[in-house]
Amino acid sequence: MRFDHVGVAARDAAELAGLFSELLETPVAHEETFDGMRVVFLEFDDGGYFELLEPTRGGPIADYLDREGPGIHHVALATDDLSAALDRARDSGVDLVDEEPRPGAWGHEVAFLHPRSTGGVLVEFVDPDH
Amino acid sequence: MRFDHVGVAARDAAELAGLFSELLETPVAHEETFDGMRVVFLEFDDGGYFELLEPTRGGPIADYLDREGPGIHHVALATDDLSAALDRARDSGVDLVDEEPRPGAWGHEVAFLHPRSTGGVLVEFVDPDH
Repeated sequence: MRFDHVGVAARDAAELAGLFSELLETPVAHEETFDGMRVVFLEFDDGGYFELLEPTRGGPIADYLDREGPGIHHVALATDDLSAALDRARDSGVDLVDEEPRPGAWGHEVAFLHPRSTGGVLVEFVDPDH
Repeated sequence: MRFDHVGVAARDAAELAGLFSELLETPVAHEETFDGMRVVFLEFDDGGYFELLEPTRGGPIADYLDREGPGIHHVALATDDLSAALDRARDSGVDLVDEEPRPGAWGHEVAFLHPRSTGGVLVEFVDPDH
């Protein structure tokens, strides 16, 4: 699988995007409001993104900020075959948050694995072409 | 800057490397014991790594595991000019953990920024060619 992005729970996505743009020389590639979140993608040289997630209402990211504070939330790996990747996860005994692909930010199909079976790492599978 | 790796604090790096190799189809690219840690790098297609960090004695990763439990610990961005990147961080008002580059795993030069000034995200700068 390919690296796609690191997802960050942020209290102010625009402010953090400004800092990271300057600091890392990573331009903003995409912004949208999706599923109760302000989402900003910064693009690294040679591919891959920071995804900054700021809740605009209650939901998983708001809960995460309340519980853990701001910081790295998940890592997303890209695949051209999300169903095969989910089958591989099931075969490896990994618990799935999403049994089937669902619409994610930027018009991508996504599915999350449960961190309890992946060493505490919240892993997202993403198919950027769908 | 380029994406280099996501660093994961693990209780058993070899076990997690086995799971991620199978699940993500990411082969082990490098293993070493460095600075009181067992370190395993898994390589993604098209570049970039998972770095799994298991403490072999007390230190920052052992403290992190005690405090936060296992999971994503930091994100590392690569540059060919670490001194310029650190100057940019200082100019942006970011607090540095390492004022100067120091030797990191895999023979690379590294420097960490303090998460209190980067939205809770522990950022590592790495120069993979030095």
